[in-house]
Amino acid sequence: MTGDNHRLLLRARPDGIPGPAHFAAETVPIRPPEPGELLTETMYISIDPAMRSWITAGTGYARPVPIGAVMRAGGIARVLESRAEGFAPGDIVQGRVDWQSHPVLRGAQAQKLDLTAGSPEDWIGPLGTSALTAYFGLRDAGGLRPGDRLLVSGAAGGVGQIAVQIGLLEGCSVVGIAGGAAKRHYVTAVLGAQAAIDYKAETDLSAAIGRACPDGVDVYFDNVGGPTLDAALLHLRHGARVVLCGRISQTVAAEPYAIRNLAALSAARGRMQGFIVFEYHDRYPEARAWLRTQLRAGRLQQKLHIVEALDQAPNALGMLFRGENTGKLVVRVTP
Amino acid sequence: MTGDNHRLLLRARPDGIPGPAHFAAETVPIRPPEPGELLTETMYISIDPAMRSWITAGTGYARPVPIGAVMRAGGIARVLESRAEGFAPGDIVQGRVDWQSHPVLRGAQAQKLDLTAGSPEDWIGPLGTSALTAYFGLRDAGGLRPGDRLLVSGAAGGVGQIAVQIGLLEGCSVVGIAGGAAKRHYVTAVLGAQAAIDYKAETDLSAAIGRACPDGVDVYFDNVGGPTLDAALLHLRHGARVVLCGRISQTVAAEPYAIRNLAALSAARGRMQGFIVFEYHDRYPEARAWLRTQLRAGRLQQKLHIVEALDQAPNALGMLFRGENTGKLVVRVTP
Repeated sequence: MTGDNHRLLLRARPDGIPGPAHFAAETVPIRPPEPGELLTETMYISIDPAMRSWITAGTGYARPVPIGAVMRAGGIARVLESRAEGFAPGDIVQGRVDWQSHPVLRGAQAQKLDLTAGSPEDWIGPLGTSALTAYFGLRDAGGLRPGDRLLVSGAAGGVGQIAVQIGLLEGCSVVGIAGGAAKRHYVTAVLGAQAAIDYKAETDLSAAIGRACPDGVDVYFDNVGGPTLDAALLHLRHGARVVLCGRISQTVAAEPYAIRNLAALSAARGRMQGFIVFEYHDRYPEARAWLRTQLRAGRLQQKLHIVEALDQAPNALGMLFRGENTGKLVVRVTP
Repeated sequence: MTGDNHRLLLRARPDGIPGPAHFAAETVPIRPPEPGELLTETMYISIDPAMRSWITAGTGYARPVPIGAVMRAGGIARVLESRAEGFAPGDIVQGRVDWQSHPVLRGAQAQKLDLTAGSPEDWIGPLGTSALTAYFGLRDAGGLRPGDRLLVSGAAGGVGQIAVQIGLLEGCSVVGIAGGAAKRHYVTAVLGAQAAIDYKAETDLSAAIGRACPDGVDVYFDNVGGPTLDAALLHLRHGARVVLCGRISQTVAAEPYAIRNLAALSAARGRMQGFIVFEYHDRYPEARAWLRTQLRAGRLQQKLHIVEALDQAPNALGMLFRGENTGKLVVRVTP
């Protein structure tokens, strides 16, 4: 197969929020697959907070993307040509598609999606990495138990929306924190959380948490860090667990926010747990079995926030850090 | 029995470090014991960081001592007269002696010491609450495993000196942090830690921790909080555990120190655990059996820092917060 591969390269490392200035478009011929490889066309690119650390020198858990290289990204693609065993044209796969229209993937690193379990869109959300993150973050890192009071920040985001629903399915009472009236509505009216706090509308976030959780919080699932984390610490119940899942408020902060309320963690004999989903790789099948059951029964929903076209990926990344998405943010490359 | 009970009352709540200005001496007649009670004479009074929170209004885990009440304290006493079953004159007991020479204790709340297991002095240290704190803090809250790199702050203090030794007995390599050359010497030459850092002699504590623990820290047992905790966070290995046992640097701080390096906990997928020994009350026998075995075999030692005479208790309390003690600080009331 011949044709063009459109791709976006990292041009400069951002200081704050990334955007179009930091990436450059390029068109190159499609590369034919070697033995063991697949030529694919990208359907969806996942836009995730971790991407900010991938384009920062010397931070994060992954090697930074070099200047001039194609931007790293996970996503979903359709196989056009297969030279890898077990894959055929038309298969839908998940893998490191990067910011390009026609990635060549190694078969060993692509996961063929079981479309009887869910649509490609389901595999981005309720069966995807965001959902696995919520599942292991709550159950393992957070030790969530039925009856717990669960507080979730970034509650209308990709991970947060699943965390809210898992909490409800597990028999917890759930309070979400999100920015803006629309997200607040989504968290309560659509996802079903008992309450939601619009942090942008509150002058005293700690007081708002106190009103929503008058008996305190058993598990705080933190997607944002910074002052929201500091406020939540003041409302921990005895033996509370804080899951440090994300810190999107801090990823682009010039100066790291300093936490003042650690004494409250001590006083509550609470636990704060750093967490990343990839550590649970061996147990993904367990999580997917649970998530699939909930999805089939119609008990798990998601909002995808879709940005159209590959060339909008840099804008989409900026939207994420400005909190402009409701639900899981993706770029649709080909429908 | 008749005679005088010398005691010290809380006169004023301190702003910073407590001392003689905050207490008042008083002499009252010895009170005869009622049924179920013991008249005792105090041998040793334990001087502990938690006492600072007991004299602060509305903080900490225990009800504050009222102004005009006898200062609360644990200690060791000899029974003079018993009206409680199971106790006889001459028995040595542990209990809430408070700052007084002749406390009347309720038998139900006094613990008769097994002097075949250790001397009264051993019951203050290697068999006492400080040792239980180190034991459960390391094993349970810290999940200490053989081969771990253990970092202990306040390493020459009452809890710290036992934590260092438990770490060594468990097959860990241990680095202590303490203030001053004498304490540093005690931690390495006497207790046997692989290294000790004199934080008062270091301009860059994080760099000093990095030199002493070039491969990072698996368990950080924190007795001090504040900037020492912040520096230690930068050296956590993957899966590290931080035990928030004490925060003596912050107990008397006017302004709480704000922690800047929480992102390092996240990056290490580490755990930070608030901890208090009283939560493990049901398992004290297990811990004492282990500690007794080590003590009998001569594998556990302690330094008692003894201040003579009840009227020096307020000064002793001040010494604790100025870091002037090496080893477990006690006031000797009667030998």
